Amino acid sequence: MTVDDTILEVQRPVRRELEKVQERLRGLFRTPIPILNEVGGHVLATRGKKFRPTLLLLTARLRGPLRDDALVCATVVELVHAAALIHDDSVDRSMLRRGMPTVNGLWTDEMAIIMGDYMYAQAMALLVEHRQNAAMGILAQVVTDMSCGQALEFQHAFDLDVTEAQYEQLIQGKTGSLIGAATEIGAGLQKGAADRRRRAAFRRFGDTIGVAFQIVDDLFDYLGDPAVTGKPVGYDLIEGKVTLPLIAALRLATEADRRRMRKLAGRRRFTATQWADLKAAIERAGGFDYARKRARALADEAREILSDEPRGAARRALTAAIDYAVVRDH
Amino acid sequence: MTVDDTILEVQRPVRRELEKVQERLRGLFRTPIPILNEVGGHVLATRGKKFRPTLLLLTARLRGPLRDDALVCATVVELVHAAALIHDDSVDRSMLRRGMPTVNGLWTDEMAIIMGDYMYAQAMALLVEHRQNAAMGILAQVVTDMSCGQALEFQHAFDLDVTEAQYEQLIQGKTGSLIGAATEIGAGLQKGAADRRRRAAFRRFGDTIGVAFQIVDDLFDYLGDPAVTGKPVGYDLIEGKVTLPLIAALRLATEADRRRMRKLAGRRRFTATQWADLKAAIERAGGFDYARKRARALADEAREILSDEPRGAARRALTAAIDYAVVRDH
Repeated sequence: MTVDDTILEVQRPVRRELEKVQERLRGLFRTPIPILNEVGGHVLATRGKKFRPTLLLLTARLRGPLRDDALVCATVVELVHAAALIHDDSVDRSMLRRGMPTVNGLWTDEMAIIMGDYMYAQAMALLVEHRQNAAMGILAQVVTDMSCGQALEFQHAFDLDVTEAQYEQLIQGKTGSLIGAATEIGAGLQKGAADRRRRAAFRRFGDTIGVAFQIVDDLFDYLGDPAVTGKPVGYDLIEGKVTLPLIAALRLATEADRRRMRKLAGRRRFTATQWADLKAAIERAGGFDYARKRARALADEAREILSDEPRGAARRALTAAIDYAVVRDH
Repeated sequence: MTVDDTILEVQRPVRRELEKVQERLRGLFRTPIPILNEVGGHVLATRGKKFRPTLLLLTARLRGPLRDDALVCATVVELVHAAALIHDDSVDRSMLRRGMPTVNGLWTDEMAIIMGDYMYAQAMALLVEHRQNAAMGILAQVVTDMSCGQALEFQHAFDLDVTEAQYEQLIQGKTGSLIGAATEIGAGLQKGAADRRRRAAFRRFGDTIGVAFQIVDDLFDYLGDPAVTGKPVGYDLIEGKVTLPLIAALRLATEADRRRMRKLAGRRRFTATQWADLKAAIERAGGFDYARKRARALADEAREILSDEPRGAARRALTAAIDYAVVRDH
């Protein structure tokens, strides 16, 4: 099964709802301000697989047919994610995302900040309008966690002494928290609000998938095919992002390899040979293998959480979502 | 009376509360992330007169002694304002604000986006924690209005055909909405929630002060002393911001002056002579006078709204706040 087949299988039980989410998002860009509609239309046209709203809808779907509150919350989670990406692209000066031009690339950084702020505000306004207080509380904390994750990334830029625990804390904030919020909110819908234990379990479920997803993403930066990922290899390191393969390799390597890696990884640009040397040293030390195993262990934890849930289309799709997080190729 | 005396008079009835607001803000930057605390400390040390929280507290104070909910809302309004300024400075590439270095100036645009997002998130989290649902609804709309105001500014950049109505709509979004929110929230506290007519009146009160405040700010860009305003004259126009003195002058001028102004105002930089010529033409057409009169008319509207309120320290301070908005020199 290809990765595209996997994502289709993940989305199948909630495909109609995802279309309604997209329709609601379109509605936010029918404003009297032409430039806002133009940029918004571009953002919606280039958005990806809606992984976060899909997880929210599937988690809610475990307890029966979906209602309007699930659509509202799914729309909000997608808005928060899109806003964060738009700000990130501007921060990183990225001109492309998955091969498509970014807002700051097509317009300006100014427009990227404005558009991100507009989408955050719309997310908040939708939650207020539909009195989704539980989701509001969860997402207020998540946006804090996401900016703290970014601040930690700033703090640890080019820091070759960053520990695995610090790295996981950072990617939990940056990526895990919003995916965890999606599944926690989903578990609190459909009269699930009273079951605190299950809500906490689904928080862990999403956090775990999110961290695994980011570890795999960080692996692609070393091992991915730029033609598929839409992003050059080695970009993370050039930006100062020290990720799990290197962290693990620095810990596991021989003294000679450790010194070689520290010297290479401290560079701000690489020749093809230097990059190949660094990758070979990480491979020898078992850094890639370590990261793959960690992602798989997290996937197992997530599967375990699902084992108490009723069998059916939603559970099958959530299982496929775990596979998607750890086995996808971009 | 100097402008500094005026602002002291405005703040006097709520000075202790403003200190508590500052203390709460400091608490938000005692995090485990050193860079966040460092940047946050700088932001708090360089923040200005707390005009928005002051107005909120004074409006609430009209109905008696303040409670904790007023402090929470005042803190949130200051957070939203500071977040918006940090994003604006990054958008505008401003290195200084009131003569003090900006976040993007001392650190990076990246840090400015992160810090702004963090402060917006903290604002939302505080409102959730203290169950301030009314304030939440108002502020969700305001952040939307503020980003729409910014988008309109982007839309109308270098547009010499922008109308006075479009300009007022733009500054209402950019500046009026948050000041209007501050006084509307203030009027809804102290058991004021039930009185919808009064809440609406205080919304207009703040909107009106805010628009007047911005018109005066835009006048400074032509007439201010850079040593006092901390910002070079003519900067707005170079950035494409066409403001009321020029809009009015283009409408009121003789055909010859209109042509002269359009030609001069279309430039991206000015010699001292060109700038003096443009100012002289605006003056001849009565553009500055028109803007001053509009600000004064708005101040009169705001004073009228206060006339129903009980006399006392809070009302006197709010009257002084109107004066401050239209007569300050920076």
